[in-house]
Amino acid sequence: MKKIVNENTQNVRIIPLGGLEQIGMNITVFETDDSIFVLDCGLGFPEDDMFGVDLVIPDTTYLQENADKIKGFVITHAHEDHIGALPYVLKEINAPIYATKLTMGIIERKLEEHNILDKIQRKVIKFGQTITLGDFHVEFIKTNHSIVDAAAIAIYTPQGIIIHTGDFKVDYTPIYGDAIDLQRFGELGKKGVLALMCDSTNAERPGFTPSERTVGRTLRNIFDEHKNNRIIVATFASNVDRVQQIINIAYEFGRKVVIEGRSMINIIDTAMKLECLNVPDDTLIDIDMIKNYPEEKTVIITTGSQGERLAALSRMANGTHKKVVIGPRDTIVFSSHPIPGNEKPVTKIINELFQKGADVVFQDTHVSGHACQEEIKLIYSLTRPKYAIPVHGEYKHLMAQAKIAEELDIEKSNIFIMHSGQVLEFANAEANLVGEVESGSVLVDGLGVGDVGNMVLRDRQKLADEGIVIVVLALDAYSGQVIAKPQISTRGFVYVKQSEDVLEETCCVVEETIGYCQNKGITDWGRLKGNIKDALSEFIWRKTKRKPMILPIIVEINL
Amino acid sequence: MKKIVNENTQNVRIIPLGGLEQIGMNITVFETDDSIFVLDCGLGFPEDDMFGVDLVIPDTTYLQENADKIKGFVITHAHEDHIGALPYVLKEINAPIYATKLTMGIIERKLEEHNILDKIQRKVIKFGQTITLGDFHVEFIKTNHSIVDAAAIAIYTPQGIIIHTGDFKVDYTPIYGDAIDLQRFGELGKKGVLALMCDSTNAERPGFTPSERTVGRTLRNIFDEHKNNRIIVATFASNVDRVQQIINIAYEFGRKVVIEGRSMINIIDTAMKLECLNVPDDTLIDIDMIKNYPEEKTVIITTGSQGERLAALSRMANGTHKKVVIGPRDTIVFSSHPIPGNEKPVTKIINELFQKGADVVFQDTHVSGHACQEEIKLIYSLTRPKYAIPVHGEYKHLMAQAKIAEELDIEKSNIFIMHSGQVLEFANAEANLVGEVESGSVLVDGLGVGDVGNMVLRDRQKLADEGIVIVVLALDAYSGQVIAKPQISTRGFVYVKQSEDVLEETCCVVEETIGYCQNKGITDWGRLKGNIKDALSEFIWRKTKRKPMILPIIVEINL
Repeated sequence: MKKIVNENTQNVRIIPLGGLEQIGMNITVFETDDSIFVLDCGLGFPEDDMFGVDLVIPDTTYLQENADKIKGFVITHAHEDHIGALPYVLKEINAPIYATKLTMGIIERKLEEHNILDKIQRKVIKFGQTITLGDFHVEFIKTNHSIVDAAAIAIYTPQGIIIHTGDFKVDYTPIYGDAIDLQRFGELGKKGVLALMCDSTNAERPGFTPSERTVGRTLRNIFDEHKNNRIIVATFASNVDRVQQIINIAYEFGRKVVIEGRSMINIIDTAMKLECLNVPDDTLIDIDMIKNYPEEKTVIITTGSQGERLAALSRMANGTHKKVVIGPRDTIVFSSHPIPGNEKPVTKIINELFQKGADVVFQDTHVSGHACQEEIKLIYSLTRPKYAIPVHGEYKHLMAQAKIAEELDIEKSNIFIMHSGQVLEFANAEANLVGEVESGSVLVDGLGVGDVGNMVLRDRQKLADEGIVIVVLALDAYSGQVIAKPQISTRGFVYVKQSEDVLEETCCVVEETIGYCQNKGITDWGRLKGNIKDALSEFIWRKTKRKPMILPIIVEINL
Repeated sequence: MKKIVNENTQNVRIIPLGGLEQIGMNITVFETDDSIFVLDCGLGFPEDDMFGVDLVIPDTTYLQENADKIKGFVITHAHEDHIGALPYVLKEINAPIYATKLTMGIIERKLEEHNILDKIQRKVIKFGQTITLGDFHVEFIKTNHSIVDAAAIAIYTPQGIIIHTGDFKVDYTPIYGDAIDLQRFGELGKKGVLALMCDSTNAERPGFTPSERTVGRTLRNIFDEHKNNRIIVATFASNVDRVQQIINIAYEFGRKVVIEGRSMINIIDTAMKLECLNVPDDTLIDIDMIKNYPEEKTVIITTGSQGERLAALSRMANGTHKKVVIGPRDTIVFSSHPIPGNEKPVTKIINELFQKGADVVFQDTHVSGHACQEEIKLIYSLTRPKYAIPVHGEYKHLMAQAKIAEELDIEKSNIFIMHSGQVLEFANAEANLVGEVESGSVLVDGLGVGDVGNMVLRDRQKLADEGIVIVVLALDAYSGQVIAKPQISTRGFVYVKQSEDVLEETCCVVEETIGYCQNKGITDWGRLKGNIKDALSEFIWRKTKRKPMILPIIVEINL
């Protein structure tokens, strides 16, 4: 191992603020004593038990405490799990953004929607360009991914070079732009790389992810086999290369193309303006124009490939789309794989489309945007880092990459799987976990940022599972006497068949409990409510084997 | 095509009462004018939006209306999606059950749990045996599946032979018992088969499902590579052949075996009693004895391979299992694939196990129990049916089999994909859809069968997403005057930050609305509540962009 760093230089710390604990929420702090820059700023998606939560954003406590040190946000690519939290975080921490052309274009549209575009400094960076952020120099390196203009980042720190791949794959024959700059990875490897932070998403998969171009061949065959059908292709809004290929093939087959779905329209618009997408004249038409063309001369490229309930494809499938009616002359192509957790909604849509008589194609119509095992090995072999810090993915994916790193002779003690908030410090070019900072998730529900906490979620879970039984008692404010029959309402809960009787009986249980409390001299309303709650829970469980939420409400009346 | 049937014989009708509309709820009626028998009686599992629902069972209206014609229930195999609803349906319709040995053993245990075992007639059938059920003769044919003793059914009807495969695969080298009786399928094919009802679950998958025996080889390698670890294998409780293989390998490696998880213990117990499972002496030990053996000399076979929250493996993974503590010396093998929809909970457990330092193996450790495309083609080619009625699976799977049937020269108009309740009638050996009977799902929640309806589910959805705001008003029963300040409670809902003020404001909105109603002369309490609901909805949406359920409750006080 070559000597990478002089001693007595500044220490460097890496602190992930999301990632492992909240998949999608990719945000990592790089710091010295004097400066910080933040790599990516992604959005987590709510877990199944986060009822009603729209988005999950990172806790910015640590950034706010160190706001004066922050030199900027460096963004690797424009997927939501890398840029989605920017508008929220930038409202707390105003710092410049550095990103490549399309990445910045998509970020700008987002900031505009949040009305903060003019408040934020932005700088578009070219591949190969290096910027200075306090004690750090940051170079953008060309990679390939399922969105155009994705970058890896080489960070020149006082302790040595740290390379972060971002999300990437190795595509020797990409659609737009160059192949990944493997030469630069090799060159940096020769200089000596302190640490590699490499994408783990596909680290469980053997082999090599096929080129985006292979999908084009499959799609061309599908167009060829379905010459008499309207073709609808569902894919990720942000997969500009995929859209480019579909447009090229449509043009070749003399079909007009409709872009449908808000996010798809936005990104395509941005990509066209920035010349990352090349559309032949007279190819795109508005959805309202589609009726003027024979079905077999049109293609619709649409959102909704993940079964999102409100997306365009979902509305087509369930018959609520205002402009597209699915029928036997349609061929729907899913140019995507379901993201884990979305299998059921996607299958639901496929079934609905089949039931409307359409043909549905969903095999061999997609390739991943992430590196498989052989690509990961390639990057390790080019860079030969001293330390490995697998990033992106769940614990099992990071473990799978750790195993690969070990196979490639990285010492086990030099491999770090980091939890959110952990601080990895490089001092004298040696890495050690030295502590922890505040980190976590903030839930966004409607306009509320951070006000939906665990108690609210627990309540929602309970309400969802069993519903609620509300008991209203009117009591004389002075005597504490009951002055009206207890009133019982339920929502999301039903009693077994003989409901009239049971409601009556429930009333009796409440009245008995009140009587019992009065005899015992229990006058405190909190305790009275507690007693009613316990008695009713027990009674309802016995009758129905259910445990609804029970909410006693006391109204005090001044007679 | 040979002549299959004499004219002027009785018509035969096939009526699925579940299946496509409720996956898992496999129950099919075969009837003539005089007799009915029911094939399978399965349990549907609740969809994601069926909050709090435990089980889904078939609507038995049609069976009850025709109770006097019902000759019995014929069961193909003992999976929950084929037997699970029996205890519920048998409470409404008492008729004998016909099934093979292990299938009946598992059914009997279930009926015992429901205290109805002695009320139900049962007859164990051998493969090759034929029983008479009114106008039908029903023959049980040996197949292979992921549970021992699975049967296909040949039904000799007045209109011709109908073959129903049940769930099946073709395993030339099964673990217990014989390979599928392909000769009999061929023999019946030569006689002439009117209709084939064939398992579609894997109809999208090309090729041939590997033999159960191939899993044994992988498992043996894993045992070999993890000689110094305790091994924990998670699999389906009912996969007796898999358990047999694990026990054999454990014995070979000199390890003691613990069976863990209630359903696993029950089924293994039944299988041993019926000699469908062969355990060498001194191999099984109780879980309490495990501490007396070195870790590397034990194996735990456990439930929970689908990430079920309360199953044994889940408790081991999250550290709440009382007797098994997971650590770096454990190797956990998932001998299963996640059923669609279970990917996320399964991954969660894998991550938790890795985080506890255990090794987790989940690749190449399972084979499906269902026939792939080449096996389906084999059955079609042996039976050469006039009609094809694909069964088992979602619409897309049935469609995939329909395509296979077409490739094998079944006329397109002779292929029927049937919805729940549809009636397919064979008259003069011609099939036609002739109508529809009442069918549907009954939801079971706790002790309540059928009382959780759409309204309750909609309420639970709303409560889960947004919570509830309750407004209690105390009104003078005679004057209608408000006699106490409106009282506002919320559950699963929060206002944005400044909650005190907003609660106060909310009270004002309610009071203003009451004032408005009084001015307008609105005294009807229903309308008053409606007005309050509307005003509050609007107010809360404006303030928070959320739409909680709003429940006004009026308490009337006799002053």
